[in-house]
Amino acid sequence: MTSTRPRILTGDRPTGRLHVGHYFGSLENRVRLQNEGAEVYVVIADYQVLTDRDIAANLPGYVEELMLDYLAVGIDPDRSVIFTHSAVPALNQLLLPFLSLVSVAELQRNPTVKDEIRHSSQAAVSGLMFTYPVHQAADILFCKADLVPVGRDQLPHLEITRTVARRFNERYAQPGRPVFPEPEALLSAAPLLLGTDGGKMSKSRGNAIQLAADADETARLIRGAKTDTERHISYEPERRPEVSSLVLLAALCLEREPAELAAEIGGGGAARLKQVVTEAVNERFAAVRARRAELAHDRGALRELLRRGNKQANAVADATLDEVRAVMDSVY
Amino acid sequence: MTSTRPRILTGDRPTGRLHVGHYFGSLENRVRLQNEGAEVYVVIADYQVLTDRDIAANLPGYVEELMLDYLAVGIDPDRSVIFTHSAVPALNQLLLPFLSLVSVAELQRNPTVKDEIRHSSQAAVSGLMFTYPVHQAADILFCKADLVPVGRDQLPHLEITRTVARRFNERYAQPGRPVFPEPEALLSAAPLLLGTDGGKMSKSRGNAIQLAADADETARLIRGAKTDTERHISYEPERRPEVSSLVLLAALCLEREPAELAAEIGGGGAARLKQVVTEAVNERFAAVRARRAELAHDRGALRELLRRGNKQANAVADATLDEVRAVMDSVY
Repeated sequence: MTSTRPRILTGDRPTGRLHVGHYFGSLENRVRLQNEGAEVYVVIADYQVLTDRDIAANLPGYVEELMLDYLAVGIDPDRSVIFTHSAVPALNQLLLPFLSLVSVAELQRNPTVKDEIRHSSQAAVSGLMFTYPVHQAADILFCKADLVPVGRDQLPHLEITRTVARRFNERYAQPGRPVFPEPEALLSAAPLLLGTDGGKMSKSRGNAIQLAADADETARLIRGAKTDTERHISYEPERRPEVSSLVLLAALCLEREPAELAAEIGGGGAARLKQVVTEAVNERFAAVRARRAELAHDRGALRELLRRGNKQANAVADATLDEVRAVMDSVY
Repeated sequence: MTSTRPRILTGDRPTGRLHVGHYFGSLENRVRLQNEGAEVYVVIADYQVLTDRDIAANLPGYVEELMLDYLAVGIDPDRSVIFTHSAVPALNQLLLPFLSLVSVAELQRNPTVKDEIRHSSQAAVSGLMFTYPVHQAADILFCKADLVPVGRDQLPHLEITRTVARRFNERYAQPGRPVFPEPEALLSAAPLLLGTDGGKMSKSRGNAIQLAADADETARLIRGAKTDTERHISYEPERRPEVSSLVLLAALCLEREPAELAAEIGGGGAARLKQVVTEAVNERFAAVRARRAELAHDRGALRELLRRGNKQANAVADATLDEVRAVMDSVY
């Protein structure tokens, strides 16, 4: 690679519209990195939802919603590459040599896989779920990403990717000329935003303020948000999680310190807090929402952008696979 | 598919030159099927030898030896498709949706995988070995093979392929319009030819008469072949395995009944038997060997034929993957 720009791999499963939790937890960071000059690759991990029938039934719709969210928040297809996993065969082929470098015992030990297995609604764990960390290694390594923004719970996955990169280099690369970087985690201090019901904010629970929501819907959701019985507003995430999450959301939107903002609201109580949050969210996302609505009008253009991203991802994957074949001596 | 010619998938790992056991057990059958009008696909399963360092160190050499054996026995690149697994990304991508259709428990139960695990010289079972029956499903289904010539020990593998095909169709295909056939086993009554040491004939034990061997080498190998102390030659595979295997080899070469041939040799004893076998093998394979030697002179032409096969396999795999994406609704 001649480029010295850092390469970053991020992405999402196409399981629903993104919400403000995704924005402050991840999307904002991607856009910042892109604007600072990083090469950002965004994978829409469509093979990771195969086992979910409801989603699989309208996959193109879910993929389009993600595209709209990405473009609306400022991921720029002229600078970043947005692509769908299933559209890049050379990336997927990497799974095979990579699987040869990882033992079944290592896959069984992976805590995230263990967790997925525990939480799975399926009767049986599929081979796809079991080998998931190795697909993720292919997603990350096909573009030779140096950095992967992850939450703390995803660190074990990244560790498998690093292991795969290291073992591949040791086994096949010339000394001193590694094929793959060992990507570093970019641990984001993702703010803990709760859903409006006080539970985990989730695409599927109806407790999330989507980027796509309009001002009225936002107001309605926040009006119904859970608070507590104390009149005076304060920022105490441990003791008062629901109220503090609302304070935090407003503070993130306004780029202010949550404790300060809470003190300002003070005796205004929950009603005033909700008013502040609603205004802050609606103001912060007004431009994003307008852009999203505009982009949603031209589905043809949206698909064209995805096709372009897939083409770019294929070119990168083909080049990497060629290099992999060369060092593995499987060019005939 | 508009073609009504049966499609057949066969293949080998590139682990060494093929021998007369392969010829009578498999190659002869492939050529016959091809000449009867079947579309024969021959996969050189190069990703299945990744874990064997000695072979991986000279993979192109092993691949060329297989190509030479195939072409020499009469597999015709104008009618059949010879390709390397690693050269066909769309085939390999099928692994991902297929893995979603198979459970970890099913993979663990597979007797061939169990066996490979038991016989593995590696400290740990790799993810590649564990998922091997699913790669094989991709090899077989990418070209929608109807028939797979297998030995009895490979039936469980084929059963996983049939399961994958059936589940894929049930889940994704329109009723009555299956994407994949459920391929049938073509059980070959492979003759049991022993190695010249009385053990299993093997590419790597020096006890096999290779197709590439010349007449002198063949004579030398057969001269050293193990027999027994009974003077009179008979065909009794259970009681006299070594002598009977030699009789069988001659009989196969001469297209005669082994018992009849043994009776003819009778009191001539082991010396006469070995003379008959040597002449029979050398005569039967004279043309094959001459062609092989000729083909070996032009490695460039050989590689060109493989590139052509890979191109054809890619076209078939791309079409199948397009169809798979269409029914899975992952065309964006």
